[in-house]
Amino acid sequence: MENYKNSKISQYPLDKIIRLLSSILTKYDNIYTTIEKSYIPFLEACNIIKVMESEKIISVNNEKIEITDKGKKIVEELRVTELIDNKCPLCKGKGLNIEKYKNFMIKFEEITKNRPKPVQNFDQGYVTPITNFLRISLAESYGNIKNKKILILGDDDLLSIALGLTSLPYEITVFEIDKRIVNYIKDISKEYKLNINPIEFDLREKVPDYYESYFDTFFSDPPETIDAFKSFIGKGIFALKKYGGAGYFGITLVDASLNKWNNFQKIISNDFNVVITDIIRDFNEYENWDYHENTPAYKALIIKKQPDRIWYKSTIYRIETIGSSTGYNEKLDTNILQDEENATS
Amino acid sequence: MENYKNSKISQYPLDKIIRLLSSILTKYDNIYTTIEKSYIPFLEACNIIKVMESEKIISVNNEKIEITDKGKKIVEELRVTELIDNKCPLCKGKGLNIEKYKNFMIKFEEITKNRPKPVQNFDQGYVTPITNFLRISLAESYGNIKNKKILILGDDDLLSIALGLTSLPYEITVFEIDKRIVNYIKDISKEYKLNINPIEFDLREKVPDYYESYFDTFFSDPPETIDAFKSFIGKGIFALKKYGGAGYFGITLVDASLNKWNNFQKIISNDFNVVITDIIRDFNEYENWDYHENTPAYKALIIKKQPDRIWYKSTIYRIETIGSSTGYNEKLDTNILQDEENATS
Repeated sequence: MENYKNSKISQYPLDKIIRLLSSILTKYDNIYTTIEKSYIPFLEACNIIKVMESEKIISVNNEKIEITDKGKKIVEELRVTELIDNKCPLCKGKGLNIEKYKNFMIKFEEITKNRPKPVQNFDQGYVTPITNFLRISLAESYGNIKNKKILILGDDDLLSIALGLTSLPYEITVFEIDKRIVNYIKDISKEYKLNINPIEFDLREKVPDYYESYFDTFFSDPPETIDAFKSFIGKGIFALKKYGGAGYFGITLVDASLNKWNNFQKIISNDFNVVITDIIRDFNEYENWDYHENTPAYKALIIKKQPDRIWYKSTIYRIETIGSSTGYNEKLDTNILQDEENATS
Repeated sequence: MENYKNSKISQYPLDKIIRLLSSILTKYDNIYTTIEKSYIPFLEACNIIKVMESEKIISVNNEKIEITDKGKKIVEELRVTELIDNKCPLCKGKGLNIEKYKNFMIKFEEITKNRPKPVQNFDQGYVTPITNFLRISLAESYGNIKNKKILILGDDDLLSIALGLTSLPYEITVFEIDKRIVNYIKDISKEYKLNINPIEFDLREKVPDYYESYFDTFFSDPPETIDAFKSFIGKGIFALKKYGGAGYFGITLVDASLNKWNNFQKIISNDFNVVITDIIRDFNEYENWDYHENTPAYKALIIKKQPDRIWYKSTIYRIETIGSSTGYNEKLDTNILQDEENATS
């Protein structure tokens, strides 16, 4: 490992170097995909790429990253191999069938054409319509949709509208800070008789006691700081029934490291005292958003270009209550959107 | 909820009653499937079924379970609905493609025809050949197979042979208590030049220091008591490199409740200090085994019959080391195979 050890890249954990070199070796045609497939936090990946370039392990020409002869020696030393994609060709690794929701999906795309655009101050960025119906498909399989009381904590994804179109839930409530989205859902719900109850609500506030243990199921897509995680997921759990209540939420490896995942999992197990029943990689896919050029992610890129594809994905977690959880229901006055790993808001 | 509350079933958590009634309502043609799809621990499901029958909520005739008129009232009260299966028709919800391993799979079935039969005193029971290659497919996607040093803790599944056939790993080591299996793997490995290193080893013992942080990847399928979990998974982690080492193991909801899962997850996050990256339901499928009639599961059944299909499945967990874990490497003198939730060993 002489070449590796004599290089400045040895200051980073070895597995991250191996992963990034694997991804570069696989020769994706775009830097967003190269970073995505490394599953390293975006900013850290950008930093390592810059160090690799300065150490002449890789070269960057015409928007392409290549491994140099010096780099090839390190690749050999570290037994780095190309990445292999073994995902199911039909469901793309999600494991689910969404064929039966096809007409709802077409309807959803039709009626949400004029949806509010994502804004940076609420860390918005919404999932594809397919992702919404994958979530419904997963939760329906678990018996968490039909006849159920459902809460959505933050809904720029407009999952409430997708759910409403299926007519499956017993009740759909949305807590949402952004007036534009609250009003949008209200209008659509009225026009199409979807029976959604959107409430303007800042999740830094305490959830009213009325909602304690009220819901069967929640969905959320929280900002990925510890405080935001507590505010969104902890309050979701506070609002879930004590036994067999289910929560679904997305966590990325773009804005969060595995160390942060470890912290999230400690909070889930110890503080929330709920059980994780599913973790499915790359389940949620996000449309690109307009304010990308103003984010730390864009600024850190060695090749400055706009993404021409979906590259921001998240892992879905499913949790279940087992009787002993109270969740978390405190008021927070801090900025819950920012920490040092955040790249995209 | 008057009918529910006036019945003895109200002594059980409501979600378990709902799940079991959902499964019965779905009218599977076999009691093993009815219990499987409820995802309640086997013995608890059997107990609840007996109470439901004595309370005349269900009736059992000609090996069929039906909901009575009294039961239908409870079904309505509790908003119970039929179960829905939204799994991908191609990969059956596993999310993976194993087409490219087809020839290896045929070869595997051919050469393992005379494999040792599962014995009860080691809690044996092996997975289908497809399951072995699904595990390989998943781990290969994560870069945890090719050129990697791989440890298998307990291998009546003969995963080592499946791995050996692919020629992908750098090294394959097996720790196995059962002499029959050690010798079997040794013979096959010699005959087919698979280069597997099987070691006779009781996992209640300490793993030699030589193996600390030695491996890139481990696989295991532990008995589901807390002590067995520590002995198998903790020692697997002890033997993994400190950064980016990956462990794969199966946990059921047959022999373990979600409460026990919560305990496993606390051990994973707090004691082992590793991160869970994937939890995929029903990933592993197990062939039926000869000693089933001698297990608590069989004894608890209200309809005594042998299974005519695969019904024992487990969820796969993938964990990753993040630098700060030492795993667990203590000697245990206790019986690590038995606890009150165990149904099948």
